[in-house]
Amino acid sequence: MNKPCIITLTTDFGLKDPYVGMMKGVILSISPEARIIDISHQVEAGTISHAAGLIQETCIFFPKGTIHIGVIDPGVGSDRRPILVRTKDHFFIGPDNGLFWPIIKSNEHADIIHLNKDEYFLPRVSLTFHGRDIFAPVAAHLSRGINPLKMGTIITDPVQLLLPVLQQHGDILSGQIIRVDNFGNMITNIRRKDLDKHMGADQMAVKVGNLIIENVHETYAETEEGELLALIGSSECLEIAVNLGRACDQLEVAPEELVGMKVEVEKKK
Amino acid sequence: MNKPCIITLTTDFGLKDPYVGMMKGVILSISPEARIIDISHQVEAGTISHAAGLIQETCIFFPKGTIHIGVIDPGVGSDRRPILVRTKDHFFIGPDNGLFWPIIKSNEHADIIHLNKDEYFLPRVSLTFHGRDIFAPVAAHLSRGINPLKMGTIITDPVQLLLPVLQQHGDILSGQIIRVDNFGNMITNIRRKDLDKHMGADQMAVKVGNLIIENVHETYAETEEGELLALIGSSECLEIAVNLGRACDQLEVAPEELVGMKVEVEKKK
Amino acid sequence: MNKPCIITLTTDFGLKDPYVGMMKGVILSISPEARIIDISHQVEAGTISHAAGLIQETCIFFPKGTIHIGVIDPGVGSDRRPILVRTKDHFFIGPDNGLFWPIIKSNEHADIIHLNKDEYFLPRVSLTFHGRDIFAPVAAHLSRGINPLKMGTIITDPVQLLLPVLQQHGDILSGQIIRVDNFGNMITNIRRKDLDKHMGADQMAVKVGNLIIENVHETYAETEEGELLALIGSSECLEIAVNLGRACDQLEVAPEELVGMKVEVEKKK
Repeated sequence: MNKPCIITLTTDFGLKDPYVGMMKGVILSISPEARIIDISHQVEAGTISHAAGLIQETCIFFPKGTIHIGVIDPGVGSDRRPILVRTKDHFFIGPDNGLFWPIIKSNEHADIIHLNKDEYFLPRVSLTFHGRDIFAPVAAHLSRGINPLKMGTIITDPVQLLLPVLQQHGDILSGQIIRVDNFGNMITNIRRKDLDKHMGADQMAVKVGNLIIENVHETYAETEEGELLALIGSSECLEIAVNLGRACDQLEVAPEELVGMKVEVEKKK
Repeated sequence: MNKPCIITLTTDFGLKDPYVGMMKGVILSISPEARIIDISHQVEAGTISHAAGLIQETCIFFPKGTIHIGVIDPGVGSDRRPILVRTKDHFFIGPDNGLFWPIIKSNEHADIIHLNKDEYFLPRVSLTFHGRDIFAPVAAHLSRGINPLKMGTIITDPVQLLLPVLQQHGDILSGQIIRVDNFGNMITNIRRKDLDKHMGADQMAVKVGNLIIENVHETYAETEEGELLALIGSSECLEIAVNLGRACDQLEVAPEELVGMKVEVEKKK
Repeated sequence: MNKPCIITLTTDFGLKDPYVGMMKGVILSISPEARIIDISHQVEAGTISHAAGLIQETCIFFPKGTIHIGVIDPGVGSDRRPILVRTKDHFFIGPDNGLFWPIIKSNEHADIIHLNKDEYFLPRVSLTFHGRDIFAPVAAHLSRGINPLKMGTIITDPVQLLLPVLQQHGDILSGQIIRVDNFGNMITNIRRKDLDKHMGADQMAVKVGNLIIENVHETYAETEEGELLALIGSSECLEIAVNLGRACDQLEVAPEELVGMKVEVEKKK
């Protein structure tokens, strides 16, 4: 027996509806040994960029050969293509709507396959639930060793995702909040290596909305309880946190307006 | 080694309490190879009909031999019977309170077994948590190959669930909303085959509360963003949706009053 | 093939962020046969005593040899130690912040190991996410048979958790609410054996806030729908419930003030 193959799931289905259970049933019916791992089903409905980040951040921790299904699919039923992306280490299956663009962009030799061989789909494909009818069965067949090149046609024009880019103006590097986590930490798209490159060893101050933080720490423990701080978080990105508190509550901004807010890092004179 | 047996769980326990973890521990203590799949633990407390629908909709996607545990059990500790239902393809284990009535009704030759052999229960059975003390161990023993007929006595009078039925008055077919999903789609009990039978190939209009929809579409993509539409969803039932929006928010009705609301389909002249 | 080893997870990470998925990926990369079971990821951020109770209540239902990871870790990055606790039946891995104190206290001969051998960690250990970088890889190595004594140094001074204790004044036994569950039941720290010892066979009345309950029942079914009752719940603790209702809504107290509220049991004359 080979090592059982791992299939991860990232969706915006929530956990109250039958949709996730149906996908698991489809996978196990085709590939009884597959091991299904939930990444999250609580992506906010239709937020492709959030899910793209989740998949990109988590996939690197999984073993070679893992299959990652992503179903954030507001265009289901239109002519958007179902795709499979094969990188050196992993497989990604889902809609061609930008969800896997960060993966494709950071894996130069990725193969992108338009899934158009319906013998690997469920016998009846609905127009509203390709997660169950296309992506789950394709992943299950793949986990059993079917060559992905048999499942469709290579394409070279995947849909791109407009990702926020950093901007440098003099001594100021600007990025934005890309995620607010369960602890109220605000994670930005400014990575440690961006700071190293643009700021060097200089002291920095961080500004977001009405908040100014006078330097970047290594750990919560360097600060007092309740103190606002900026630090490089576990995904190597700058984040704004409160030691034993919720940083996001300190911005005078509605929760739904946090993602996308500008964050500035400035060299201290 | 046989294929490891799948046991699915559907409960109203939520994910904060120890109850689901306890059930999983009990199952794995008896049947270490069992594979446990969560369908949902977020059924609203005590809503048997909702859970009955979830189980009925998902079970058909699982492999032959799958064991489905359902614990929506407001009558635990009373004299309501614990039962096991065996259909041609699956097993269902839970309280005799109507939870499996849709399964029994649609499987003419189902065996219904009153679980009354306590050698298959935990040594101490509490009066408040049969999910852990009866249903989980019975499922685990079953997954190891114990004959279900040894676990109890066949009965023929299971508790029935009063399911809403469709009504036809002239050119109008009436059903109701049975579920509002994570996307705000309102799923009805009017199936595609009901429409085929009652409406034939005629054009239809759909009415619910203050909303009127002038025809039934095949897919979201046929409509504009934000447009209200009626379509046959992925479970072959009529549903009312908004393309990239939340249909349930368009009804002038409190969320808790949506389930059970009348939906009318009318032949267009 | 040995029985695959079970690793349970209890965290305060929620289900929207990549953190749980990352831990699962790390575990499966090191120990592909490990079986990961979620206990809960919805512990309220930083509430060590709640998680300690969850782990203690659930672990006893899991098979011998199960590994339990707990990550409620507000002191991550400080000098709080990462530990492994080995009891006769189980392993526990997480921060030395009191999380496993109830386990240690009730297992006289438990070994407590300060995890200080970084060859069992991820190659780069962040200062903010030891769940992924230390606890997950240690659990995975342990599940593959590494001797825990090789992973660190025995210690005898684990951080203790201040647990609420019962008090007896004359005919009154006082405890407190330790958890409010998904059904609105209020679970106390007064166990059946405490009642047996302090109250004997006498009739009892239960008081909490503005509520008085005139006796202790065995089951919901002994009461009317909507009736407030006290009973010994499935974890052998006294709980206050409403038959088919939510007991916690009957106290004139904000939800966040329920845990810790005094509960008195009084012998009836």
